[in-house]
Amino acid sequence: MAYVRKIINDPVYGFITVDDPLIFEIISHPYYQRLRRIHQMAFASLVYPGAVHTRLHHSLGAYHLMGLALHELRNKGVDISKEEEQGAKIAILLHDIGHGPYSHALERKLIKGVHHEDISVLILQLLNEQFSGRLQTAIDIFSGTHPKQFLHQLVSGQLDVDRMDYLNRDSFFTGVVEGAIGYDRILKMLVVHEGELMIEEKAIYSVEKFLVARRLMYWQVYLHKTVVAAEKMLVKIIDRANELIRNGIPMDSASRNLDFFLKEHQPDDNFIRHLEKFTQLDDTDVMCTIKNWCGHYDPILSRLCKGLVERKLLKIKFQAEPFSPLMVATIKSDVAQRLRISEEEAAYFVFTGEAVNTTYNIFDEHIKVFFKDLVVMDISQVDNALIHQQLSSPVKKYYLCYLR
Amino acid sequence: MAYVRKIINDPVYGFITVDDPLIFEIISHPYYQRLRRIHQMAFASLVYPGAVHTRLHHSLGAYHLMGLALHELRNKGVDISKEEEQGAKIAILLHDIGHGPYSHALERKLIKGVHHEDISVLILQLLNEQFSGRLQTAIDIFSGTHPKQFLHQLVSGQLDVDRMDYLNRDSFFTGVVEGAIGYDRILKMLVVHEGELMIEEKAIYSVEKFLVARRLMYWQVYLHKTVVAAEKMLVKIIDRANELIRNGIPMDSASRNLDFFLKEHQPDDNFIRHLEKFTQLDDTDVMCTIKNWCGHYDPILSRLCKGLVERKLLKIKFQAEPFSPLMVATIKSDVAQRLRISEEEAAYFVFTGEAVNTTYNIFDEHIKVFFKDLVVMDISQVDNALIHQQLSSPVKKYYLCYLR
Amino acid sequence: MAYVRKIINDPVYGFITVDDPLIFEIISHPYYQRLRRIHQMAFASLVYPGAVHTRLHHSLGAYHLMGLALHELRNKGVDISKEEEQGAKIAILLHDIGHGPYSHALERKLIKGVHHEDISVLILQLLNEQFSGRLQTAIDIFSGTHPKQFLHQLVSGQLDVDRMDYLNRDSFFTGVVEGAIGYDRILKMLVVHEGELMIEEKAIYSVEKFLVARRLMYWQVYLHKTVVAAEKMLVKIIDRANELIRNGIPMDSASRNLDFFLKEHQPDDNFIRHLEKFTQLDDTDVMCTIKNWCGHYDPILSRLCKGLVERKLLKIKFQAEPFSPLMVATIKSDVAQRLRISEEEAAYFVFTGEAVNTTYNIFDEHIKVFFKDLVVMDISQVDNALIHQQLSSPVKKYYLCYLR
Amino acid sequence: MAYVRKIINDPVYGFITVDDPLIFEIISHPYYQRLRRIHQMAFASLVYPGAVHTRLHHSLGAYHLMGLALHELRNKGVDISKEEEQGAKIAILLHDIGHGPYSHALERKLIKGVHHEDISVLILQLLNEQFSGRLQTAIDIFSGTHPKQFLHQLVSGQLDVDRMDYLNRDSFFTGVVEGAIGYDRILKMLVVHEGELMIEEKAIYSVEKFLVARRLMYWQVYLHKTVVAAEKMLVKIIDRANELIRNGIPMDSASRNLDFFLKEHQPDDNFIRHLEKFTQLDDTDVMCTIKNWCGHYDPILSRLCKGLVERKLLKIKFQAEPFSPLMVATIKSDVAQRLRISEEEAAYFVFTGEAVNTTYNIFDEHIKVFFKDLVVMDISQVDNALIHQQLSSPVKKYYLCYLR
Repeated sequence: MAYVRKIINDPVYGFITVDDPLIFEIISHPYYQRLRRIHQMAFASLVYPGAVHTRLHHSLGAYHLMGLALHELRNKGVDISKEEEQGAKIAILLHDIGHGPYSHALERKLIKGVHHEDISVLILQLLNEQFSGRLQTAIDIFSGTHPKQFLHQLVSGQLDVDRMDYLNRDSFFTGVVEGAIGYDRILKMLVVHEGELMIEEKAIYSVEKFLVARRLMYWQVYLHKTVVAAEKMLVKIIDRANELIRNGIPMDSASRNLDFFLKEHQPDDNFIRHLEKFTQLDDTDVMCTIKNWCGHYDPILSRLCKGLVERKLLKIKFQAEPFSPLMVATIKSDVAQRLRISEEEAAYFVFTGEAVNTTYNIFDEHIKVFFKDLVVMDISQVDNALIHQQLSSPVKKYYLCYLR
Repeated sequence: MAYVRKIINDPVYGFITVDDPLIFEIISHPYYQRLRRIHQMAFASLVYPGAVHTRLHHSLGAYHLMGLALHELRNKGVDISKEEEQGAKIAILLHDIGHGPYSHALERKLIKGVHHEDISVLILQLLNEQFSGRLQTAIDIFSGTHPKQFLHQLVSGQLDVDRMDYLNRDSFFTGVVEGAIGYDRILKMLVVHEGELMIEEKAIYSVEKFLVARRLMYWQVYLHKTVVAAEKMLVKIIDRANELIRNGIPMDSASRNLDFFLKEHQPDDNFIRHLEKFTQLDDTDVMCTIKNWCGHYDPILSRLCKGLVERKLLKIKFQAEPFSPLMVATIKSDVAQRLRISEEEAAYFVFTGEAVNTTYNIFDEHIKVFFKDLVVMDISQVDNALIHQQLSSPVKKYYLCYLR
Repeated sequence: MAYVRKIINDPVYGFITVDDPLIFEIISHPYYQRLRRIHQMAFASLVYPGAVHTRLHHSLGAYHLMGLALHELRNKGVDISKEEEQGAKIAILLHDIGHGPYSHALERKLIKGVHHEDISVLILQLLNEQFSGRLQTAIDIFSGTHPKQFLHQLVSGQLDVDRMDYLNRDSFFTGVVEGAIGYDRILKMLVVHEGELMIEEKAIYSVEKFLVARRLMYWQVYLHKTVVAAEKMLVKIIDRANELIRNGIPMDSASRNLDFFLKEHQPDDNFIRHLEKFTQLDDTDVMCTIKNWCGHYDPILSRLCKGLVERKLLKIKFQAEPFSPLMVATIKSDVAQRLRISEEEAAYFVFTGEAVNTTYNIFDEHIKVFFKDLVVMDISQVDNALIHQQLSSPVKKYYLCYLR
Repeated sequence: MAYVRKIINDPVYGFITVDDPLIFEIISHPYYQRLRRIHQMAFASLVYPGAVHTRLHHSLGAYHLMGLALHELRNKGVDISKEEEQGAKIAILLHDIGHGPYSHALERKLIKGVHHEDISVLILQLLNEQFSGRLQTAIDIFSGTHPKQFLHQLVSGQLDVDRMDYLNRDSFFTGVVEGAIGYDRILKMLVVHEGELMIEEKAIYSVEKFLVARRLMYWQVYLHKTVVAAEKMLVKIIDRANELIRNGIPMDSASRNLDFFLKEHQPDDNFIRHLEKFTQLDDTDVMCTIKNWCGHYDPILSRLCKGLVERKLLKIKFQAEPFSPLMVATIKSDVAQRLRISEEEAAYFVFTGEAVNTTYNIFDEHIKVFFKDLVVMDISQVDNALIHQQLSSPVKKYYLCYLR
């Protein structure tokens, strides 16, 4: 194949270069192009109007960081073959290929009985067939079966390029500059020791900042109360639609594909048969449908839909303690009366839940620091570290959504 | 009304403050919220993946710059009342309120017989009724009937905050950093002399850079050949849909509203009656519809739709001279044969056009420079100016689109 | 006095505006202009080549932030008179006016028996005389005797604009982007409650990031081992010069003023008499002198001087525990032998010390968080806070400097 | 030699990597370290307080860009050996090694009879001896005798990395953001055709912007009237000192080396013998000396010195036409009377001159555009180009400096 070299402008990193014909073909594939129509941050743009960037953009960014990381590691003498480089780049490029419209919450409602990451693997396998097996190394790296663990850790680990890119990119597009991380410094400080990805001692403060930035992004952006309210409304809309469908109420989605997943798809289906339909589903199907439902005669559905479309969201409160069931019941009954609906139906407008985030989970996360004297230590064990026991326990906040 | 102060994160300017209850209400209005679902740069994101920002975001940015401009002018002793400030801010906030889905090209196809800016005025008037006349000053400024011309010029003139924001913002989101302009310097150099907006002598180089940045953005971004190809394909899709509809072919849009404008709306309609429908139309209606049409049995429509959705665009060539009709005919006939369609139908896949841009139009544009000695001069007249006769004539490029 | 308005380009904040004639006069005063010749970060540029910005630039930046802070507080209804605004701006502009060449360490060696902040007050008083008492409010605010405590806290407190600017600016010029803080967000979240400066609850994560950024800047930049080594060498140079002078060795400084402070100034002097001399002292006197001393016949002095000028610095090691006196003695004796100097003299090339930093000192620092329900809490007391007991104890690191 | 890899933080490019032991040794050499003490922009910081960056920092930045340029060219198939890469990097690193204190104007006054670039070559040769001939390729590239012309053009040509870095860096540190150029895009568009450096057609707009940015930087920054006034005052100070020395007036410089060049160095000297002295001269010698001279009894010298130190500069006016000799004489005579000096002496305070800049010199500059069809064209010949005859003639402005 002829020499291909494409330079893509990226406001976050300047330029992203694609110079591998296979990777170029993958990017051009409709399955990948679909990611253009899935927002990286779902409804976060209701609070941060700049946050309209896409999953395609994020995965291109992560691919770029992968290139930088591999370059640094090779410069430090880590053995990485051409094929492994290609595999790792493809693996990160496609890490979100199985992502459905909007957030994971919606995914679970639409695609019953199949886990998000399983869909990614299924699509990777489908692509691998179409590309005559040339994606096998990528699949091995993605699923962790490739012998070089550090390649998998770069795709999915505590210091993977996925979260490095999304923190950077989400910080950039939201304008929450405090979420920015010193990704280039961290990348330069990566080392491989006994096959595992670690960071040099000198990067401790950068990693601390990375974890604190992530903490800030969670509480200030991802779990921003307005964002949570909008996402919960979307879930409630799909719940209501499912209920109406079960009750035989006529209601059409804007697209045939969305209709299929709402009406025909069953949890015990062999999902592989529907993969093609899934790869045509994106945010526009969902949003256009919700816009249509604004005029639906079911008052619960149309009220929720109009609320989301016109940004008249449910009110939401966060607090450290669970909300009293009695208070919730009172509000629910009040809403039931005002809207002349049953208390059961009022649960579409009044409900509670939890938002949880851990700054550093000492059980799951293992950011290993590699000291000059060959000692390896978990970052939470380092002297005077910011990251310690206390930050390691999850912070749970309780929320109450209700109709104003 | 209670004290309202909302701070919006903007990656371009940091923070945008809204502290006027009326403006807050306008921003919360569904007509304004619709702009969230119209991309500022239509299909530019096919080339510049970051360019997915919205008309809502742009108009908020322009509103922010208006605030800065008025603040500077007041500091220089220009008399601007509270009411005029509010009016100018509302006028710029709503300057795009009449914008239809995607680009102006599409608008003309969907809304027959009404001009884009007329729609804005109609919606402004509708809003003015809903807000009990409180938008009158804004309407006067927007339409140029307010006695203080410079306020209108800030909304729509050679140095208006509309283009200042879009150049900045489009440069920012595309990552084409060379399109960035020294907006803050230009704003600080604005003066009002004999009721007109001018710039101080010291800003000449900044304004030159502004014009050169605009020139670059036009040729490198707005008229990028891939972007042009995509936009023309969209127009061809709507053309084909209209033709099929005229021929009685059954075909549904994803939304009832889009259906109305495709099938029922007539040029001689009283458009005001359909304003409400128009204010519910956005990019998602169009994109979801096109996605549906990918499966339509008309091979011309479905091929165009799939091409746009999967980013398999028509090839496009630019050149300085018109394309030879003979050559175009040959390609058309070749395509007709390959696709087994008529030569007339092949015009959906093979067509020519022009892209025009002027760096500085000495007839229309009048950027006036105000010298210390009270002399006023058009920027094209200043000694040693970059902007002169030659740059003032429009540059025309011819393009040919064709199926590969 | 005529209308004065000066706009100063600042890479950190864009533009800094000066529009008060008195402030303009102060900036133009030679005492202030001297700050152009004192580096903000002393020898940090030996590691971070961009870090050559000046005390003048920093104090202009802090002045700019003061303007923003006062603007925000006024918008929130805090009463601040024109005179107080001017006073607070002057106070921050001049907060470093008493700073001597290079770091505070050097200051103590040169100006015996007078504390750095006392010099600032002395110079403020001198200026106040020259400006016919127009700096009185500034002095009151600076020294904390003005009734509105929050004004003093903005100049010198836990969230003062001094450290906000230096963290920002030092991060900017070093290129250590991780040290950047969300200063604009913090400024927008300042409130005054019962006369004291506090932050709104919503800013907790930003303040956390601020403290973590400061922690990072301390360990990664201010206490970077190479920077510490250079600063200690400078101190040793002055120590040696003092010793030689005491021994009657002829040695001239590059400037008469530096000579005076080295040779004639005594701790029990009435320092006020030498204030004028002090206000002519800057980094160039010291550096030019050290360059001259590279050729001095005393081998200890010339070796230290050449080392600093040519960036052949002493080696330095940091560790968590004090260095063993035995080891230090051994190295010292080895150096004494190699250089054929006494062990006492070897102490110029082999010495130990401590670097200390506290992320948040719960005893001294009191960042108060103001909750919506009027509750006030120290940030270290807030639920799930990052800032807690453990981070509050100082981190001490021990260093050993030695000739390689 | 052991593996050396040093990462230097740079606020402009993020990180600069040095991984070649020879280059590392060169950077550590005292001749190179001297560049830390020479400001890149001489007195520009009197107007732009951030512009205090150094020649060392600039040359490190240019070295970084050279690495990027060579990397791009190699990726495009241009043959560049390891040795050539090292040579080109060293050549650019040392391109300013012969630069004297402050501006070129001063250089000519201090080092009589030797041209600035000749000094660079002399020092390069001296270093080459010290490094046992390992700098030979660098010298060949620097002086244009290396067979691959494009390497020389990268060091010194129309699109060399020297001016790319200084425009970027000066724009960055002054805060004149409009001077920023799309260096990374231009670098990616470089090609080598028939041994010469050219740019791809797609980069035309970027190069236009580059030339317009340079034009803006010249008139807005480098030839800013206050900057010109300060630089001329420095020249006048040295002129006066020379005159006083000729007249036998006792006056010492702060440093022995500066003394030598002021008092003993003769134009017909063999400059090579003084090279070592020259390599110890920097801005601090000059500034410290000027500070000392503020107290000199010659009223002309001390007034000029105080003016520069305290930023009480001569007034300066620019105009398009030469100043009338009569007017100049009148002002001079007025100053002579006021200061009680001769009219000849008044020429230190009242003088005229010219500032010249050409946006694109069609005679000297040859930016060649390489079209896809292998056509090569000068950028001034391209259709619709911004750069044309008119911009090609130099713009001359006349200035008058005078004591207020």
